Amino acid sequence: MSTPATDGAGLFGPADPSAAVSDLLGLMACGELMAFERLAHDATLAPSMEDKAELARMAVAEFNHFVLLRARLADLGVDPGAAMAPFVGPLTEFHQRTAAGNWLEGLVKAFVGDGLAADFYREIAEHLDHSTRDLVRGVLDDTGHSAFAVDRVRAAIAADPRVAGPLALWGRRLVGEALTQAQHVAAEREGLTALVIGGVDGSGFDLNEIGRMLTRLTDAHSARMAALGLES
Amino acid sequence: MSTPATDGAGLFGPADPSAAVSDLLGLMACGELMAFERLAHDATLAPSMEDKAELARMAVAEFNHFVLLRARLADLGVDPGAAMAPFVGPLTEFHQRTAAGNWLEGLVKAFVGDGLAADFYREIAEHLDHSTRDLVRGVLDDTGHSAFAVDRVRAAIAADPRVAGPLALWGRRLVGEALTQAQHVAAEREGLTALVIGGVDGSGFDLNEIGRMLTRLTDAHSARMAALGLES
Repeated sequence: MSTPATDGAGLFGPADPSAAVSDLLGLMACGELMAFERLAHDATLAPSMEDKAELARMAVAEFNHFVLLRARLADLGVDPGAAMAPFVGPLTEFHQRTAAGNWLEGLVKAFVGDGLAADFYREIAEHLDHSTRDLVRGVLDDTGHSAFAVDRVRAAIAADPRVAGPLALWGRRLVGEALTQAQHVAAEREGLTALVIGGVDGSGFDLNEIGRMLTRLTDAHSARMAALGLES
Repeated sequence: MSTPATDGAGLFGPADPSAAVSDLLGLMACGELMAFERLAHDATLAPSMEDKAELARMAVAEFNHFVLLRARLADLGVDPGAAMAPFVGPLTEFHQRTAAGNWLEGLVKAFVGDGLAADFYREIAEHLDHSTRDLVRGVLDDTGHSAFAVDRVRAAIAADPRVAGPLALWGRRLVGEALTQAQHVAAEREGLTALVIGGVDGSGFDLNEIGRMLTRLTDAHSARMAALGLES
């Protein structure tokens, strides 16, 4: 038996699966639509029309994911705009605080930022019904975009190793800003938070499990930075 | 018989159909990719997530057109980047000189600017082979995007009639800047220009036909402005 002070269900109330699903899908839909905007903007930084087209293709993939998520929300009888609304502020702030200053920063953000977000969404979806989990996994499937970012960033570092230091710092800043906004969301969306820390059955706060999840997220982030040739 | 001074073939040489096709497809591919960027940017001006998603959908449609045009260029053995290169400068300048300052300006630009460009491309494609003509027509098919722009602009004017005057001026400016850039392109791309003024057979400069074409383009532009509830 646990006391309310250390029990997720006690702190936040038992997680409501349908509210948590709306929150997760709303967060992802909002994230994909904003990722579309950001990638389309960063495409303007491309050094060639070919590179521009490649980033535009990534943006279009994000928009297509948004369409899938919006359709699922509508199928569930949830107004997509309302489901997205709570996340517009934190995501806008994240993108404003991490506006890419050049082409390489944009690529690192696309690869590292989206990768971190995708890992986090997958972790949450593990606690949800099969149908939601399959949708989330499908939407987050890497469609070969990573290879492009890795190729371009590694080539840039090979051509001028001095770019690696600032890009490594940039990667750390992306993670820091993402954590800051995640905390804002966690404080405001109790259903989602209860799900992350307690599971839908409200089976209680498991500090060890949260620790393991953070370790998994951090390890995957470090692996992505290493793939780019950057220290994390 | 005509003298070189008044004969399209004499001024520009007989039009080379394959060069003209590369030019047209390169111009359109470049135009679609830049329209993608511009619409994605203007989506940031949207007053709601629903409107943002709608403009993003228009941007994605432009990108999909770009992909078709690029594939056709590659099929013809033409390097897409090289075919697009001559048009990057004029199109960039057009978009810089007509950057939308607000949501409604972005909608008018999407509707009026893309409509004018589409009409012009269709006129050129009439002189080309069936296969190119079908591709151009398919790419330019309106996919219901116009209705959205018309609806939103008319609603804004109904809510506040004072927005109509500045938007009408904005429409005129869009046409003026488009003509300026079209002249730059015409001066530099002889194959394309010879096609417009003389047909692929170099059958000669037909001033009356050019006059009729300009009348058709102007009439269609006025009709679009009227559909928005604006004077042209």
